Amino acid sequence: MSRLDSFIRRLEAQRACLNHAVELTRHLDGIVLELGLGNGRTYDHLRSLFPGRDIYVCERRVAAHPDCVPPPERLILGDMRETLAAARASLGERVILAHLDVGTGDAAANQALAAQLMPLVVPLLCQGAVLVSDPVIDSAELLALPLPDGVTPGRYHLYRRL
Amino acid sequence: MSRLDSFIRRLEAQRACLNHAVELTRHLDGIVLELGLGNGRTYDHLRSLFPGRDIYVCERRVAAHPDCVPPPERLILGDMRETLAAARASLGERVILAHLDVGTGDAAANQALAAQLMPLVVPLLCQGAVLVSDPVIDSAELLALPLPDGVTPGRYHLYRRL
Repeated sequence: MSRLDSFIRRLEAQRACLNHAVELTRHLDGIVLELGLGNGRTYDHLRSLFPGRDIYVCERRVAAHPDCVPPPERLILGDMRETLAAARASLGERVILAHLDVGTGDAAANQALAAQLMPLVVPLLCQGAVLVSDPVIDSAELLALPLPDGVTPGRYHLYRRL
Repeated sequence: MSRLDSFIRRLEAQRACLNHAVELTRHLDGIVLELGLGNGRTYDHLRSLFPGRDIYVCERRVAAHPDCVPPPERLILGDMRETLAAARASLGERVILAHLDVGTGDAAANQALAAQLMPLVVPLLCQGAVLVSDPVIDSAELLALPLPDGVTPGRYHLYRRL
């Protein structure tokens, strides 16, 4: 399996999980939170999946395609370890779907960052909210959900807030 | 169609064309030329497809994953508009497969660069060689080939050197 193969597989798994999350969150009221904008491709996909939801995006420094930059009032600029704590007052328990793809290419660093972020992310999730995540998450407040068809376990992750 | 959808579609088309090129070049003796290393994913895929071929890679400045950097004797460093002309003495008519993915994200700029590069690339190709290309190529010395199953015309391109 080449790096091109595994990259395509990962993107397909990511997309399948995000698409599946639409059904999983249909009954919930609230907002979507994208943890990391990057080039904006996933944000653009979330916009297409959740046309009726406000989508907030955390990013240190915007470097996305100009068509994929969120409006300033929903862009949370800065280091997520600081901004997520500050966002609790306004976003606390309002998030129905959060997506985490820290995607540095370094699996151990991604895992470590995810572990740092989770205590800040979980309080933003409403009960029943879904977390779609590239790194595996270990949290007593999150239940791992079955993956959609075609996604091999471990390739991407889905959780429900208890 | 979101940018995530179109990105996945493009990568799938790229991979299908590269995989198909293995069959199309099986009867030819020679080397493979990757025009642009980028993060090295496609180079890694070419390595897996052509284990018995020498793969030369042009790149301005290497920024690939360390596992995906070609050996120095097959790395052609610098601006391709200069290095390809200089490579003609050593690589002329020895290339059985060239892959061009300039991938700047700006379609017009990609097209312009491809037009500049083609007079330098075509003389490196042996007769019957295959060019796999992201931008469409207009050259009297290249014949457009049918795309593999599942790849919509225009999404990626295959040519045979006459």
